[in-house]
Amino acid sequence: MSGRKRVGILVFDRVKALDFIGPAEVFTEANQRVDGYETLFFSPDGNDVTTSMGLRVGVDGPAAGDDPLDLIIIPGSEYAPAVYDDPAVSDAILALAARATKVASICSGAFALARTGLLDGKTATTHWKFTDALADTYPAVNVRPDSIFVRDGDVYSSAGVAAGIDLALAIVEDDFGADVARSVAQLLLVYMRRSGGQSQFSASVRVSPPRTSVARAVADYVASDPARPTSLRDLAAHANVSIRHLNRVIRDELGMTPIEYAGSMRLDLALGLLEEGRAVSETASVAGYPSTVAFRRAFAARYGTTPSDYQKRFQTTGDGIAEPPKI
Amino acid sequence: MSGRKRVGILVFDRVKALDFIGPAEVFTEANQRVDGYETLFFSPDGNDVTTSMGLRVGVDGPAAGDDPLDLIIIPGSEYAPAVYDDPAVSDAILALAARATKVASICSGAFALARTGLLDGKTATTHWKFTDALADTYPAVNVRPDSIFVRDGDVYSSAGVAAGIDLALAIVEDDFGADVARSVAQLLLVYMRRSGGQSQFSASVRVSPPRTSVARAVADYVASDPARPTSLRDLAAHANVSIRHLNRVIRDELGMTPIEYAGSMRLDLALGLLEEGRAVSETASVAGYPSTVAFRRAFAARYGTTPSDYQKRFQTTGDGIAEPPKI
Repeated sequence: MSGRKRVGILVFDRVKALDFIGPAEVFTEANQRVDGYETLFFSPDGNDVTTSMGLRVGVDGPAAGDDPLDLIIIPGSEYAPAVYDDPAVSDAILALAARATKVASICSGAFALARTGLLDGKTATTHWKFTDALADTYPAVNVRPDSIFVRDGDVYSSAGVAAGIDLALAIVEDDFGADVARSVAQLLLVYMRRSGGQSQFSASVRVSPPRTSVARAVADYVASDPARPTSLRDLAAHANVSIRHLNRVIRDELGMTPIEYAGSMRLDLALGLLEEGRAVSETASVAGYPSTVAFRRAFAARYGTTPSDYQKRFQTTGDGIAEPPKI
Repeated sequence: MSGRKRVGILVFDRVKALDFIGPAEVFTEANQRVDGYETLFFSPDGNDVTTSMGLRVGVDGPAAGDDPLDLIIIPGSEYAPAVYDDPAVSDAILALAARATKVASICSGAFALARTGLLDGKTATTHWKFTDALADTYPAVNVRPDSIFVRDGDVYSSAGVAAGIDLALAIVEDDFGADVARSVAQLLLVYMRRSGGQSQFSASVRVSPPRTSVARAVADYVASDPARPTSLRDLAAHANVSIRHLNRVIRDELGMTPIEYAGSMRLDLALGLLEEGRAVSETASVAGYPSTVAFRRAFAARYGTTPSDYQKRFQTTGDGIAEPPKI
């Protein structure tokens, strides 16, 4: 009898293909080093499913069955969390979980686990788009919004899409050690470990445009001259309201203080400048930070990485040619 | 009529799933920002295929057809280059290429393009495992071994597996600009641009164990005391041969000079120490480099990244929790 670990992956209509192909390829590739894994695919009823990209995929059988599994993986869907309200999907998860030792969710698959109660009292993460919704909908889940993946006992969860590969590598490292995990990462051309958390990927989400005239006044104040110092008194005068009124309106609309809102506006402006390719020191100065260090601190607190690393990773795809690092 | 770009992906038995699911998910995700892409899947004969991980996938039709395509993608296979000797695969590629504007290969898919002559006179790359074999088998192809991806006119190629995502992001940036590509990268939780080339991923390949007694003597000399200075005279004395004989035997066996071979041994030793978590300065000293700077130079020349970045990315998967960067 084989000592291989049996990994069961649940697929269903509208599943996101990369969410489960990433981890499945990690386990498949690990077999080049160790006779480690058998990867099996299940759908709720055993029929083929159609992924969100339109690709039809076959399965090894229905979710209900008797054979034990070491790990089951619940991938995400672009149609989350609605797709997980399908009782057939919930039943399939419970059927698989009943015969498995460990349970893992990728991306919005955390909603599927949360809905069945399997995340109650657990710490977990999901795609940065969905962390607030997961925490609001399932208060019994301790949501960690900046993690790439989370291990809590026998329950694993990962951030969005490609983070499923990071999680699968961590499972391979737990099962067979860092050398095997490293080989797999190097064969697949992925890193074993990101620098920084998932918040660096949420930078595409900027502060919402202001709705009330008071919020608009604060936004205008920053936009018209970002380098001008910002005091509550100046903001209130500019909006032509009392400080008390300013505080209340901004908290009601945006859930933060006026000074925090002005800071978010500056950070958004700075992000745009970095993405255009402006130097970090110039960005700090144009966006109204008193120093480059102050800018780097504010940036790191929000995005878990440095402005220069963010710029290197997200300004452009470049030309695909390696440049020698600076020594 | 839609102005969407039509991307055709060739799949075939034993294709590597992540090679084509990565790019397909990039194009699918881009549609959240622009009505940009229609992704279609073709097999040689229009039947379902079974990927190397055992997953069966359906297709939109056979490769032969009349509808024009903007881009075709030829993924790789673990069974490369042998799998591309199948005339049905070659014919399918030619049929797709005949109706396409641009052609792209992922990973070992470069062998498939090279076999049909579509890479003749072009610059291209492939998985680091296969760069030597591609250059040897197809001398008309200018192989760039350290690139993550290569654009040469209307012909694109990428390094291994996940590098197909990097290439697809570059194509999205070409088609719709950096903002759209950045959104896609951030939704999928991938970087737009790696730091360093693909050689950092080849570090799992160490120098072959010595076969001849002379090479063994050189290896022993370095291993027994890496910090001892290495001269040709010392090596020859240790191997009990003349310098001329030493040079010839090492070149014949390993294709390098004895001093280069000793340097490779030191670099391998240093890699192992970094992977164990030893500090860069300690690694430099234990592995016999005269200074940390000398070690960093040698490391960067071979792997296109710095020792500390390599260690951060490949020592362990870590705990998935973001640490704040050092400011």
